[in-house]
Amino acid sequence: MNMISRYGSYQIDQLSVGLTASMSRTVTETDIVMFAGVSGDTNPVHLDEDYASGTMFKGRIAHGILTAGLISAVFGTRLPGPGAVYISQTLQFHAPVMIGDTITATVSVKDIIRERSRAVFDTVCRKGDTTVLDGEATLLLQGR
Amino acid sequence: MNMISRYGSYQIDQLSVGLTASMSRTVTETDIVMFAGVSGDTNPVHLDEDYASGTMFKGRIAHGILTAGLISAVFGTRLPGPGAVYISQTLQFHAPVMIGDTITATVSVKDIIRERSRAVFDTVCRKGDTTVLDGEATLLLQGR
Amino acid sequence: MNMISRYGSYQIDQLSVGLTASMSRTVTETDIVMFAGVSGDTNPVHLDEDYASGTMFKGRIAHGILTAGLISAVFGTRLPGPGAVYISQTLQFHAPVMIGDTITATVSVKDIIRERSRAVFDTVCRKGDTTVLDGEATLLLQGR
Amino acid sequence: MNMISRYGSYQIDQLSVGLTASMSRTVTETDIVMFAGVSGDTNPVHLDEDYASGTMFKGRIAHGILTAGLISAVFGTRLPGPGAVYISQTLQFHAPVMIGDTITATVSVKDIIRERSRAVFDTVCRKGDTTVLDGEATLLLQGR
Repeated sequence: MNMISRYGSYQIDQLSVGLTASMSRTVTETDIVMFAGVSGDTNPVHLDEDYASGTMFKGRIAHGILTAGLISAVFGTRLPGPGAVYISQTLQFHAPVMIGDTITATVSVKDIIRERSRAVFDTVCRKGDTTVLDGEATLLLQGR
Repeated sequence: MNMISRYGSYQIDQLSVGLTASMSRTVTETDIVMFAGVSGDTNPVHLDEDYASGTMFKGRIAHGILTAGLISAVFGTRLPGPGAVYISQTLQFHAPVMIGDTITATVSVKDIIRERSRAVFDTVCRKGDTTVLDGEATLLLQGR
Repeated sequence: MNMISRYGSYQIDQLSVGLTASMSRTVTETDIVMFAGVSGDTNPVHLDEDYASGTMFKGRIAHGILTAGLISAVFGTRLPGPGAVYISQTLQFHAPVMIGDTITATVSVKDIIRERSRAVFDTVCRKGDTTVLDGEATLLLQGR
Repeated sequence: MNMISRYGSYQIDQLSVGLTASMSRTVTETDIVMFAGVSGDTNPVHLDEDYASGTMFKGRIAHGILTAGLISAVFGTRLPGPGAVYISQTLQFHAPVMIGDTITATVSVKDIIRERSRAVFDTVCRKGDTTVLDGEATLLLQGR
């Protein structure tokens, strides 16, 4: 069977503590504008360069929840992959994400709760060596 | 000068425990498609009706982080309003959000930490009487 | 090393003839509107329901090139995966794709040209059992 | 009745070999981000500047299929114009398209197959004098 499964995702019994996956993306002005549109969060720290340049950030920053979306992308496409469903996510914001920053989201298996088909992950987003966001997530996995 | 400031937001000393604000939005297929685009989360539970109809949800569901964006919208536009910056957010997902569901996000002041210009909020998203998402957030407020 | 590589893609020497990967997606009105925007293809067969309902398709159809984008997605994310670069693609359109159709794109390794770091793939998009689009692609692979 | 029809397109008997039409567009970061969203192709050569700067292209490139969309735009809006439907398209990718590049897509009638209401076109996309993409297309035309 030489076929890659249509939706290759990890079943709970294929996980092991320490298993890790990442994705990276350069945050663009487009991402911010579109996220403002779908969330309704039109805070001027994200959309108004005049206003934002007068804040401690000296320019527009990405929505924290948009950055969190990159963690969701790793879960939904890499580890555990398609079919994964969120139970919980904590988010600690440590540094701003500016337009043009390349962010890497990394998730690592921290605990596996087989009898409830759940796994706990450490989650972190970094810009180079700087942690911009971290937290912990619990996911419900497909399969046994 | 009785003028409404360009960006009317709550200063820390205008907050009181229990102060509450809400926003509602009907979640559309467009929101989900666009959020998939800006986050990179193309999990088929969100984008593939054939796949999703075979899950426990019986259809495509919104990304949990997209729903969380509605909480961010209340913070960034209503309470405390423009200029607010996230320190942390916890998210507990309780029920799925389907295309066409109208979600109301509500935030309530729970604690005020004046010396650090921070406030803690209870945050909840409801679909009618059903809580779909809740958690707690800490924000950094502009001003003294 | 328990880590999933940041960008897990197939190197040329990991490919074998017959290796196959797929992705599925429900085509939405949003996809069509946004593709019209980024391509400039505002043909009324895609955007004008009144006009389109008078054609042989009896309604708006997706842009053929948008459907082809799903093949590109399999190449860029699954097989060979991140870093893959297009050399060529042929596209034969066999049946229309309507709003709400779920399309599965499948690519299969047909030939490997190691000395040029290239691989040839059969490519097909299906709606259920109906082939809506097929063709052949040549890609340049990263690595040796 | 000297009125311009609502959708002015070429009928098959108005075509002649050599008839040519073009459209140009500057490819933006927004185009790339939105195409990634509607196609699901999140290949880091398109979205991750850090990754892409380490490739032979030295930066993010547009999706090849996005550039092909500009050919589709000429067909769907200029020649033959509204109502045109794709039968086939071949695509040979010769050079990368970077953010900010202005691309001109040109289509020229190569052959007319009256009895099947089809026409064959040479198709090319150029950046200045450089051919970035070429191929051949067959279209089904409206009308007799």
